[in-house]
Amino acid sequence: MQTVESKSEKIFQRACEVLPGGISRNTVFRDPHPDYVQSASGCYITDVDGITRIDFANNMASLIHGHAHPAIVEAVIEQLKKGTAYTMATEIETQFAELLCNRVKSFERVRFMNSGTEAVMAMIKLSRAFTGKPKIAKAEGAYHGTYDFAEVSQTASPENWGDIDSPNSVANTKGTPKSVLDEVVIFPYNDIERTLSILNRNADKLACVIIDPVPHRVGLVKGEQEYIEAIYDWTRKNNSLLVFDEVVTFRVGYGGAQEMYPVSPDLTALGKIIGGGFPVGALAGRADIMEMMNPRFGKPAFPHSGTFSANPITMTAGYTAMKLFDKEAVTNLNSLTQKAIQQIQEAIKIADVPVSITGAGSMLRIHLKANPPKTYREAYQSKETQKVLKNLLDYLYYKEHLLLVNTCTCMFSTAITQKEVDILSDAFLRAFKELREQIISIQKEVAV
Amino acid sequence: MQTVESKSEKIFQRACEVLPGGISRNTVFRDPHPDYVQSASGCYITDVDGITRIDFANNMASLIHGHAHPAIVEAVIEQLKKGTAYTMATEIETQFAELLCNRVKSFERVRFMNSGTEAVMAMIKLSRAFTGKPKIAKAEGAYHGTYDFAEVSQTASPENWGDIDSPNSVANTKGTPKSVLDEVVIFPYNDIERTLSILNRNADKLACVIIDPVPHRVGLVKGEQEYIEAIYDWTRKNNSLLVFDEVVTFRVGYGGAQEMYPVSPDLTALGKIIGGGFPVGALAGRADIMEMMNPRFGKPAFPHSGTFSANPITMTAGYTAMKLFDKEAVTNLNSLTQKAIQQIQEAIKIADVPVSITGAGSMLRIHLKANPPKTYREAYQSKETQKVLKNLLDYLYYKEHLLLVNTCTCMFSTAITQKEVDILSDAFLRAFKELREQIISIQKEVAV
Repeated sequence: MQTVESKSEKIFQRACEVLPGGISRNTVFRDPHPDYVQSASGCYITDVDGITRIDFANNMASLIHGHAHPAIVEAVIEQLKKGTAYTMATEIETQFAELLCNRVKSFERVRFMNSGTEAVMAMIKLSRAFTGKPKIAKAEGAYHGTYDFAEVSQTASPENWGDIDSPNSVANTKGTPKSVLDEVVIFPYNDIERTLSILNRNADKLACVIIDPVPHRVGLVKGEQEYIEAIYDWTRKNNSLLVFDEVVTFRVGYGGAQEMYPVSPDLTALGKIIGGGFPVGALAGRADIMEMMNPRFGKPAFPHSGTFSANPITMTAGYTAMKLFDKEAVTNLNSLTQKAIQQIQEAIKIADVPVSITGAGSMLRIHLKANPPKTYREAYQSKETQKVLKNLLDYLYYKEHLLLVNTCTCMFSTAITQKEVDILSDAFLRAFKELREQIISIQKEVAV
Repeated sequence: MQTVESKSEKIFQRACEVLPGGISRNTVFRDPHPDYVQSASGCYITDVDGITRIDFANNMASLIHGHAHPAIVEAVIEQLKKGTAYTMATEIETQFAELLCNRVKSFERVRFMNSGTEAVMAMIKLSRAFTGKPKIAKAEGAYHGTYDFAEVSQTASPENWGDIDSPNSVANTKGTPKSVLDEVVIFPYNDIERTLSILNRNADKLACVIIDPVPHRVGLVKGEQEYIEAIYDWTRKNNSLLVFDEVVTFRVGYGGAQEMYPVSPDLTALGKIIGGGFPVGALAGRADIMEMMNPRFGKPAFPHSGTFSANPITMTAGYTAMKLFDKEAVTNLNSLTQKAIQQIQEAIKIADVPVSITGAGSMLRIHLKANPPKTYREAYQSKETQKVLKNLLDYLYYKEHLLLVNTCTCMFSTAITQKEVDILSDAFLRAFKELREQIISIQKEVAV
């Protein structure tokens, strides 16, 4: 692209010699090469070639206060000087667990871990231990981390997803044992009738039904209240657990996305924002279920440890971040995001493009179709649509200097103000005008 | 124990209301309650009640330089001010991968993650993806993290371990699906004949054979050279991979414990010390295998991401720690540990107790039996032995103010000096004398 090699290009060439594909996380890959960060502050992020962008991705939704928030930096430095991890307990793990339990009705006990992947894995293992049943049920297309049971059908496609009345269990990783696929039951999100029918056919085997209340990869569409209630009722009748993956969605409300519903999950997996910018995962829920992890009276039914679990740096950063993300902060952030949605919808109207927006709380996702998708199969993107979406993201990134999640999703932070929202909607307007023909050209295909 | 309630007791009472069993990691639990850390520096760790202990556990072997090493603190603070995690790449991930690849012959490519558990899970998934085979083989009693396939038979006992010629696959967590147990083949560590015979019976299904070269829970006994070579040869002939879990043992040599052998593993799981005190995991190995994670040309065979994987704080701390742990530092640390072993052996002789020591590099483990165990079944502790071991650990912890890993294992750090080694061996001498009768009383039982 450029004749003079950029600093990022040079680093990437070295990276290709030591990292597979030159990258360390699939989500940071960008063609022809990723850019490398020099520093970041609040909602601004500057790369090694001196380009500053506004950050609407916030490390995949994990930085609720943006970068290097002074209160978090200060608290972490204080702890850092006293050590980062011990083979002993620290008070801050109790304080942080108290904060979370006070905040969410369904949280009676908490166990901390190192990632959302670990939290979902622990949630599934605990569900099996508690119910004595081997299978799990999950929504087609939903992302729940990289535990192989949890990732089944995450990237199902028209070639392999099968009949909607009984979706196939599709391997996400090559070589996933057939025995793993057989333990996972797939249902179409927000489709009550089909979901209940599928659950009924597996009633005696299901340890839990996993629900992300606003599943990003399914389309960032809210689980309808009637749907969540129906699954809750089903689990009560069938000795199964309703478990939520709120790794991403905990930001949606003061008490997580679960406070949108009159029913509560038995267990909840957490991650992302509760780490205050540091690696974190957590499992929270009913005391009687969590009790199976208690090691005080001999080997527990579900033994669980982890070298860095509940390390005081993550606990300190997470506690500080979540204290700052109080009721008022949640309300303000969600209002600002609503404002952004309105302004982008205005841009859609002015540019006259068939584009729609989904989301909840401080999250929004752009879809290149006139009507917002309601299911994974509706949200599914053909190769052609993916190409146009990449052009849109590249336009925003290279021309407008805006960093979004690679699904064209914004995950807001409290560091964003009306000024950045205006820049965002103006940029979208220019992008929509620029790419109008491309966006229109893929509509026929989308309708199929 | 005390009439006046300690600060730790008070915190623990609060913890019991929000954490299962009042603890956040099984390894930090201590009866009647854990103590809570106030601060730590080098090899000294002080609790909230003002008691300072010498730390020979180093957060379960993860702190190679002890607590709050000035160079690590300084480097982390500098990064902290620039942000802790981004949806973009950072140069330090490449620098750190270069350092690791330069250090170990078998490391051609590296992928970073958040924990040893994640690293082992990724190693198993990648082995399946590369070979197209579903099963794994692992040693009875070996700890490889909490991924359910990896934890099978980790705590097998005489009641369930079965015939040594064909050990049972024993669930570690209640409710582990039978389908998981069926995918895991168990062999007795360091027993060439039986291991090869068991591998042969599963030759067409085995994606990999997992070896920890000095498995802590098996007895902290080195894998014999002949044994490792035999398994290596077997995997060459049977389209299977030899994969090492060096999460704990990477500290043993400058190039990990694997440099003890003439053959190299295809893949290695890392964690602990390479994080410099922060949550970390990594998978390293052959470029052709790691290439299956490359996302540059469409969806890879093994898609892998992770919100906090390769975050620049962990990379900075890990890079700094590993640079400091150079060849000279490794040699000095291992020499000091050898010195400690000699001095404790002297104490054993003086106290005239049937006690033995195993270990390698900067690790040592005490066994309450005259001859060091060579296998998991020999190292297995009855309830009575566990009770005496707990008395020994409590003596060292409460009376001598020494913190060890709860298997009576020391994981040395470079912060430890001859002074602390002398305190350690003197304390062991007093402990052995105090507990001599108890230690002798369990010998008959051990011999069974």
